[in-house]
Amino acid sequence: MSNVNERLRELGLVLPEAPKPVGSYLPCVRTGDLVFVSGQLPTRAGTLVAKGKVGTAVTIEQAAEGAKVAALNGLAQIAATLGGLGNIVRIVRLGVFVNSGPGFTDQAKVANGASDFLVAVFGDAGRHVRAAVGAAELPLDAAVEIELIAQVRG
Amino acid sequence: MSNVNERLRELGLVLPEAPKPVGSYLPCVRTGDLVFVSGQLPTRAGTLVAKGKVGTAVTIEQAAEGAKVAALNGLAQIAATLGGLGNIVRIVRLGVFVNSGPGFTDQAKVANGASDFLVAVFGDAGRHVRAAVGAAELPLDAAVEIELIAQVRG
Amino acid sequence: MSNVNERLRELGLVLPEAPKPVGSYLPCVRTGDLVFVSGQLPTRAGTLVAKGKVGTAVTIEQAAEGAKVAALNGLAQIAATLGGLGNIVRIVRLGVFVNSGPGFTDQAKVANGASDFLVAVFGDAGRHVRAAVGAAELPLDAAVEIELIAQVRG
Repeated sequence: MSNVNERLRELGLVLPEAPKPVGSYLPCVRTGDLVFVSGQLPTRAGTLVAKGKVGTAVTIEQAAEGAKVAALNGLAQIAATLGGLGNIVRIVRLGVFVNSGPGFTDQAKVANGASDFLVAVFGDAGRHVRAAVGAAELPLDAAVEIELIAQVRG
Repeated sequence: MSNVNERLRELGLVLPEAPKPVGSYLPCVRTGDLVFVSGQLPTRAGTLVAKGKVGTAVTIEQAAEGAKVAALNGLAQIAATLGGLGNIVRIVRLGVFVNSGPGFTDQAKVANGASDFLVAVFGDAGRHVRAAVGAAELPLDAAVEIELIAQVRG
Repeated sequence: MSNVNERLRELGLVLPEAPKPVGSYLPCVRTGDLVFVSGQLPTRAGTLVAKGKVGTAVTIEQAAEGAKVAALNGLAQIAATLGGLGNIVRIVRLGVFVNSGPGFTDQAKVANGASDFLVAVFGDAGRHVRAAVGAAELPLDAAVEIELIAQVRG
């Protein structure tokens, strides 16, 4: 797990600065060996990369990329709180909320953008459970929001 | 708890084969003495038994039956991962997402289909907390999706 | 933490009687040092104080007040289950579902009603992660629903 940053680099990614919460809450809370991460939006340098309803304004591919960006932001939050990603034992759970236009039922394909990314970074330790559902609306009109639970050591 | 399968039989139910995930994730993850189960749909032998929006295409009764089927699938996932249901100490939490048509506010009655079922199977150990909410859309147009946390031993 | 009730009094609040579940589930389950609380509605003495869709029937301010009331109900549930609030170590996570009218994307401002309240009551121990999302519909047409995880001792 010590080579997570290297793996990110191989994927052409850099851990971003952890996004500031958009309200009066914490990005991460550790309790026991679990770290809970607040719902993350698909922002890059403060701008949403996937905005609007999936199936109408946003394609599945754009939303799946957004899910990946939101998951990357979740890792940035853990790194900022724990001082790095080296103590992650495994990803436990994702909650994936997809801003869904009428009749859009491919929430799973959107969520795969985050799930595949986490497996690419952590291997088997990145495999997780998830619930992917269609939200009526999301904060800032984000196309997707992802919350995360990870197991950590130390 | 050793007679869970017997209890299912008394209820006229058989633990189905665990449904395959519809994306790149795991059906169950155990961490410590908690087992997290991915969002389950109301499928029987691969076919949705409750499809569409509750309050319009689907009645409360059909959706409540779907919630029961989804919960049964959740138990099948735990059984497949742990090698049976005998090590379940209790059901801790359900997340219940109801594919809700305009103005449908009886999410609790739909969720009762799963909650009542779990109490029928496990008795007091089946009693749990839950959050029941209305989703705008759900994967594959399922009428309901249920995720689950259980406490296990061993 | 022993002066939580005093702090509530300073805020002009009294811990209400814990609302009865609106279905066949428990208000709280403790497992290990975590307490999971079922989704709470913004009811006061059995009546919703914020009902309908936020952005259309309900203002952000009304919904934020509703979020506070729902969070207070969550504390009442913990107090009823544990015999008081003195054993709360910290608030870990809120799930905030906002009954969102078309185009309403200020779920974070609604959720702040609960988050700010918990920090006012518990100080730093009240700071938590959260996921705030837009629900299509909510039970009883509540404007907001809040579920909660707290860490406890003893």
